Amino acid sequence: MADGLNMSRRIRRTPYTDRVETAGVKGFSVVNHMLLPKAYSRSVEEDYWHLREHVQVWDVSCQRQVQIQGEDASELVQLMTPRNLTDMSVGECLYVPLTDVRAGLINDPVLLKLSEDKYWLSIADSDVLLWAEGLALGKGLNVQLSEPDVSPLAIQGPKADELLVSIFGESIYEIGFFKFAWVSFKGTRQLIARSGYSRQGGFEIYLEGGHLGGDLWDMIWEAGQEYNISPGCPNLIERIEGGLLSYGNEMTRANNPLELGLGKYCSLDGTVEYIGREALENIAKKGPDRKIYGVLFDAPSCPTCSKPWQVKNEGMVVGQITSGIYSPRLKKNVGVGLIDKGYWTVGLEVSVTLPDGQIRGGQLSNLPFA
Amino acid sequence: MADGLNMSRRIRRTPYTDRVETAGVKGFSVVNHMLLPKAYSRSVEEDYWHLREHVQVWDVSCQRQVQIQGEDASELVQLMTPRNLTDMSVGECLYVPLTDVRAGLINDPVLLKLSEDKYWLSIADSDVLLWAEGLALGKGLNVQLSEPDVSPLAIQGPKADELLVSIFGESIYEIGFFKFAWVSFKGTRQLIARSGYSRQGGFEIYLEGGHLGGDLWDMIWEAGQEYNISPGCPNLIERIEGGLLSYGNEMTRANNPLELGLGKYCSLDGTVEYIGREALENIAKKGPDRKIYGVLFDAPSCPTCSKPWQVKNEGMVVGQITSGIYSPRLKKNVGVGLIDKGYWTVGLEVSVTLPDGQIRGGQLSNLPFA
Repeated sequence: MADGLNMSRRIRRTPYTDRVETAGVKGFSVVNHMLLPKAYSRSVEEDYWHLREHVQVWDVSCQRQVQIQGEDASELVQLMTPRNLTDMSVGECLYVPLTDVRAGLINDPVLLKLSEDKYWLSIADSDVLLWAEGLALGKGLNVQLSEPDVSPLAIQGPKADELLVSIFGESIYEIGFFKFAWVSFKGTRQLIARSGYSRQGGFEIYLEGGHLGGDLWDMIWEAGQEYNISPGCPNLIERIEGGLLSYGNEMTRANNPLELGLGKYCSLDGTVEYIGREALENIAKKGPDRKIYGVLFDAPSCPTCSKPWQVKNEGMVVGQITSGIYSPRLKKNVGVGLIDKGYWTVGLEVSVTLPDGQIRGGQLSNLPFA
Repeated sequence: MADGLNMSRRIRRTPYTDRVETAGVKGFSVVNHMLLPKAYSRSVEEDYWHLREHVQVWDVSCQRQVQIQGEDASELVQLMTPRNLTDMSVGECLYVPLTDVRAGLINDPVLLKLSEDKYWLSIADSDVLLWAEGLALGKGLNVQLSEPDVSPLAIQGPKADELLVSIFGESIYEIGFFKFAWVSFKGTRQLIARSGYSRQGGFEIYLEGGHLGGDLWDMIWEAGQEYNISPGCPNLIERIEGGLLSYGNEMTRANNPLELGLGKYCSLDGTVEYIGREALENIAKKGPDRKIYGVLFDAPSCPTCSKPWQVKNEGMVVGQITSGIYSPRLKKNVGVGLIDKGYWTVGLEVSVTLPDGQIRGGQLSNLPFA
């Protein structure tokens, strides 16, 4: 599962990497040219149970911010996403699929509205800054674009509220889901959002000022001892069970938001203008050819899904799985992927072909898994 | 030096990854969301000597192509680079720095002109496709942009000519440096260029059709036995000694082509229009504040440069090293990085501060190292 990763300056360290190494990191991934810790000493399963019961601190600095500021900031942001942003308020976070002219997905960031003319796109793994800069320059928009020195630290798990209240006080309770507020830290004002890449609740602190990274980690870590805190990372079991999709895994430029169940984030009535509108409306008119489903399939062991695995029904290929892993809670493997039209029946009997040729029986499932 | 790399579909495998694994790969890097083999069983030093004497096969599929085709293709390509492309011929490869409006480097690809209205940009590690698409869409240019199914395989080292002649015939000798031709392979026509990320000579086959990857690797591998072929990868000792820069290491958005010694690739007389022209002309007028140099400094052991190392002269910080390693040929460490104006003297005595606080004596050197 883990081969060697050769380091260089190009694979950027984060403000927390020193601490992550001290905490015993065993493996990384690379997202936005930056290290994302992906494994500590515990197994993915042990980590899964811990995340569901306690609280963890995650270095998700790789969720880089694309800062869009200026007179035409709102116009550019709306141009980039099918989601209707007309009523977005300062202090809100919105999940916004970004589409190209063919309605293919360029990224699926969280958009934060900092002021009427200032936004952050907190991005998955593609250089959205280059896309935004190309558009702005080409169209002659009046915006300033940058990657600010902002590195999110996630605090995830059911004890995240208690832990952060112990540090920042009761006002933490007042932060609504996908809303953000500001807290004081070492004489600076830092953004904290009730959000994160798990279904266990928690927050993300968008630390501005990388030199403060060690101090922030230490403060969370020390206060967290009382709550059985652990270093962690997005957990593959938890995210698949929870139906959280991953850019580059479930979604690529070859996928559109409608087949991925993101229709609720797409304006399809012509209210707003955005890149890919015509293509997306056409897909909506005839309906998508594929849809995202869960697949519950037989254990034991599930290898790493590095290439899509075929899903078959009665010998016919009817789709593919793009992420999969053993769920210790469901005592089966859980996978997620696109299923062709005509086979959209929860409970449909399917088979999954693993890379070594093994065939495992399974059924289609809703997402999130029950 | 190598920590674990956790795999997923997002970290894309290449048409050669199966073969690379069979050949005993020990470590990867990630470039353009794709695996780049970086270590096999031999040490970097053993690999260095082998590369200088024999021939190696490198999976450099991560050098993705940005295909630019259509009526306005030449206009878009020229817009993206300071290099004057007016006289570029079909069959040529040109090294083209890409700049933003502030003349910061977006990438440093090799441009291949396939026909009067079709180009490939063979890119380093940033999503140039998004940049090009944003520009084209914003400006309303008539071009089709894509990432084609093209995965370069490099054959590098002094025996590369002989090896490829044994496969494709004497016409290989006729391919000039940074020129390309076409060869037949399994009923397909494949592009082969005399180029590559080493100073030891060789070729890159831009394989079109990923399903042919295993066959191409096997053919090279089998014919290569006679020439003592080995699986390899860009060699850090060889590239630093040779003065080959690396995007993300020596150059980022914070650097301009002039300080990196790339002035010879920049039109500064207003002949052609491109993004960043005004900024670059201003830098040229007052002269750059920093310039790229080699630094030869005392052994033993040189750690991995994950963060720039300070270079000092008489206690004053005068620059930084961004890549460094021990050279078994020069019996010293070799580094490369930017040195501030006022200190541009080859032979200048400097010190290098390593991450553990150790200070090593050294001298500024020309690039490539002698």
